[in-house]
Amino acid sequence: MNVIVDLCIIPISVGVSLSPYVAACEKVISQAGLKGVLHANGTNIEGEWDAVFAAVKRCHEVVHGMGAPRISTTMRVGTRTDRIQTMEDKVKSVQGKLGGAVEGV
Amino acid sequence: MNVIVDLCIIPISVGVSLSPYVAACEKVISQAGLKGVLHANGTNIEGEWDAVFAAVKRCHEVVHGMGAPRISTTMRVGTRTDRIQTMEDKVKSVQGKLGGAVEGV
Amino acid sequence: MNVIVDLCIIPISVGVSLSPYVAACEKVISQAGLKGVLHANGTNIEGEWDAVFAAVKRCHEVVHGMGAPRISTTMRVGTRTDRIQTMEDKVKSVQGKLGGAVEGV
Amino acid sequence: MNVIVDLCIIPISVGVSLSPYVAACEKVISQAGLKGVLHANGTNIEGEWDAVFAAVKRCHEVVHGMGAPRISTTMRVGTRTDRIQTMEDKVKSVQGKLGGAVEGV
Repeated sequence: MNVIVDLCIIPISVGVSLSPYVAACEKVISQAGLKGVLHANGTNIEGEWDAVFAAVKRCHEVVHGMGAPRISTTMRVGTRTDRIQTMEDKVKSVQGKLGGAVEGV
Repeated sequence: MNVIVDLCIIPISVGVSLSPYVAACEKVISQAGLKGVLHANGTNIEGEWDAVFAAVKRCHEVVHGMGAPRISTTMRVGTRTDRIQTMEDKVKSVQGKLGGAVEGV
Repeated sequence: MNVIVDLCIIPISVGVSLSPYVAACEKVISQAGLKGVLHANGTNIEGEWDAVFAAVKRCHEVVHGMGAPRISTTMRVGTRTDRIQTMEDKVKSVQGKLGGAVEGV
Repeated sequence: MNVIVDLCIIPISVGVSLSPYVAACEKVISQAGLKGVLHANGTNIEGEWDAVFAAVKRCHEVVHGMGAPRISTTMRVGTRTDRIQTMEDKVKSVQGKLGGAVEGV
């Protein structure tokens, strides 16, 4: 089962700057061989369910290992059985209905 | 690694009533031996990471099997390494700061 | 337009204990005359759109006023035009399909 | 108070294709004079709190007006008082810690 996930990991009690932790998670995703696209409020990831969720678990382990005692993550998780759809397909599908004038990925 | 998850599964293109799908997911959670607490916008689940996420995957499989061609799920995922905290602890911790007068779980 | 919201406010860089901030938000919701139901991962609120979102804004102002330099909130926001549905209706609708044996609100 | 929002609107019971509704919301955001950046799982928006949330309300009204009887929206809502930060700043801050090799906005 393929999945598209939007992952936002918030380490708690590590100060106000979260980008080192997000960067560490980007590396986890990339080392897992998964496609990840960073945006202003998270990272979109696509792949096989088990591989994607193994990477999410690894992100929690890595961020705890960096010193965060508590993590609050939010995810959007999309699956479909009617057809195969990539992250790019999703964006293009919306842009196609707008005449292409949208800033986007 | 223990985790507390807030799971909200939205089957798409199955009509306006989603409760049969949510009920099926409640059964998946309970059959997995996990503690689940239903609320108006999702289900809180606590347990070992792998068991909880296996149940989430099973929910997607079951809801697709019931005929939903597309699912959009949202999750809040909390882990902490500083101490053990249950779902009940979280609610009580807030209520203790309010004088107990809050309607809640 | 009536709305049911699931609100989870995470103050960042205030330490590991978030319950004082959540309790302050409970008071904001209650002082706004809104029905709020606390659960382990957020607070469900129902009411008229403008009143609910004014309370959410007030929560951000109050939590910043308590010293949080940064806040990361997540919300689920549900509206429907086909019929009136309360938070209790949503829970009962699922429980009715389970034979009533679910722990819940 | 400035805010960065990640908005994902899911119309329920309108079939499997949601892009016409997302495109309509893109127009709402753009007509409100707000900066919106579409990604595979939502749209990031930045602006003054009241303007951003007025646009979110307008999106619900427009999507209901297009025939959706029920909408399930999720939002991430970020505010900070320590400094001004744009959506671009957030992405660059992570990319700067990665050596620039990340695909992103």
